Amino acid sequence: MQPHMNTATQKNVENKSLRQHWVAYVHQLQDRICQALETADGKAVFFEDQWTREEGGGGKTRVISNGTIWEKGGVNTSVVYGAVNDKMQQQLQVADAAQWFAAGLSLVIHPLNPYVPTVHANWRYFELYNAAGQITDSWFGGGTDLTPYYLFEEDAVHFHSTIKNAMEPFGSELYPTYKKRCDGYFVNTHRNNETRGIGGVFYDHLRPANDEDALRLFNFQQANGNAFLQGYLPIVERRKNMAYEARQKHWQEIRRGRYVEFNLLHDRGTLFGLKTNGRTESILMSLPPTVRFEYDYHPLPGSEEDKLLQVCLAPRDWA
Amino acid sequence: MQPHMNTATQKNVENKSLRQHWVAYVHQLQDRICQALETADGKAVFFEDQWTREEGGGGKTRVISNGTIWEKGGVNTSVVYGAVNDKMQQQLQVADAAQWFAAGLSLVIHPLNPYVPTVHANWRYFELYNAAGQITDSWFGGGTDLTPYYLFEEDAVHFHSTIKNAMEPFGSELYPTYKKRCDGYFVNTHRNNETRGIGGVFYDHLRPANDEDALRLFNFQQANGNAFLQGYLPIVERRKNMAYEARQKHWQEIRRGRYVEFNLLHDRGTLFGLKTNGRTESILMSLPPTVRFEYDYHPLPGSEEDKLLQVCLAPRDWA
Repeated sequence: MQPHMNTATQKNVENKSLRQHWVAYVHQLQDRICQALETADGKAVFFEDQWTREEGGGGKTRVISNGTIWEKGGVNTSVVYGAVNDKMQQQLQVADAAQWFAAGLSLVIHPLNPYVPTVHANWRYFELYNAAGQITDSWFGGGTDLTPYYLFEEDAVHFHSTIKNAMEPFGSELYPTYKKRCDGYFVNTHRNNETRGIGGVFYDHLRPANDEDALRLFNFQQANGNAFLQGYLPIVERRKNMAYEARQKHWQEIRRGRYVEFNLLHDRGTLFGLKTNGRTESILMSLPPTVRFEYDYHPLPGSEEDKLLQVCLAPRDWA
Repeated sequence: MQPHMNTATQKNVENKSLRQHWVAYVHQLQDRICQALETADGKAVFFEDQWTREEGGGGKTRVISNGTIWEKGGVNTSVVYGAVNDKMQQQLQVADAAQWFAAGLSLVIHPLNPYVPTVHANWRYFELYNAAGQITDSWFGGGTDLTPYYLFEEDAVHFHSTIKNAMEPFGSELYPTYKKRCDGYFVNTHRNNETRGIGGVFYDHLRPANDEDALRLFNFQQANGNAFLQGYLPIVERRKNMAYEARQKHWQEIRRGRYVEFNLLHDRGTLFGLKTNGRTESILMSLPPTVRFEYDYHPLPGSEEDKLLQVCLAPRDWA
């Protein structure tokens, strides 16, 4: 650290370094996750689309499709920045922000077999700067959530316990708080407040109070990112060879319709991305491959399909 | 008309009658359209869901599915009213409205055969009232548009010409104005401003200046509603027996994905309905039965699929 810098510049420099470390981490995590998913599949491989953004930055979109396990999936990183425009100003509700920076990893995996759950995860870091280029705000956000088509309680317990264990060293209040936030976020309010799936965790605006705190939050993000494969893959292994028929596929596609409804009607990330001239293909990569919309569809009361629906209407504690 | 009423009350009474006539018309049109679509199909029939709305009014949702021609379709009427709430106040941007009334017919038909176009139409009438129960504003809106998966120029010409001819007696400037408005409305702004289909007409806020004008606008609405079958069915007859293969079905489902994106991301009617506690199933009846989302999908340049896409990227004049 240069001793003759003023505090704002110092903070800027240190955060630049935090920024760099974060960018390195998400790229390394992207490699690790893609590799593990390819190994699990044994057939399909990711193809990478590198893109740049006119206003600043770009990303690496990695897409997999038509695998033995993965019907469609994306594991994307992006490192983007630019001037704060009117729409962002509105959403961020800050007056003095002139420039912004964001980097993160975002993934959605849609398996072919209706007994294997869809999974979503996202870990991100933001910085805002004033007109003088000084950092005025920074925060971490993230989370992961599971969208099964059939409920296996042991899978729900495994997924949630893995996250809980990863968060535990950072405070035992974190998992229950962020679990509740997840249940409150992934909700189709237009469908009786039905959740998208069986939840996970969701957190945002984790602002470092100082450098030490920034390191703590960076470690917290890594703990979550690193726990992802461990939370998801064992479930995949347990379900991937289960035989299914047209009925299960039909139900999967109906539920995927709810996934589409949530993402296009309610998901703040999707809407923010599309409004701020984000890369449409990378954002809408999250949409499932085949989807079905039927008028007023209800599963038979008491059926396995209904069991899943009921748990979306009344979220439970799993860990 | 009662000679001792004040002007506001008179207007109210006359409009009540206009309201009644309009409600009778949309129900009669609903019967006529459903009957004609059933006859064309020869197998599937509409089933009717009557519903009521806690805040006031209700509707008749009529749904057809798994026909020889119609894979999924709905022809709905609704007659709804209530107190103006905050969200409506925002959208309507009027200060003195206390109560509202709306009645209309809304239809979306998704055929099975990718050579038969999807069609949408809507005709509606609104009234606003102040706290004293007097009408303070009223307007008609409506339109119809065609979403083919393959471009047949003669179909586009027939569809647009039928509308143009129906509108002609009311002023030759109407069709070109409302055609342009349609091209400007059904647009996926997040996809290079690609239109949903090859358009039609779209108009709103047609406010009667006086009683005579109200009658003229009522006749205009009927001319449009009555021309619907004539504009659509001959196209269906021409295309319904064309053989198709997996490639055409695949493309239809990809384009249906764009239909979903438009309806959930951009359609004001859909978003307004879901925000104002409208009936979700009747609103989302518009979504196609089977849909496909693929990452960064582009048809082969110069292919029949691409021909359709190009006309969505640069709308043409058809009549």
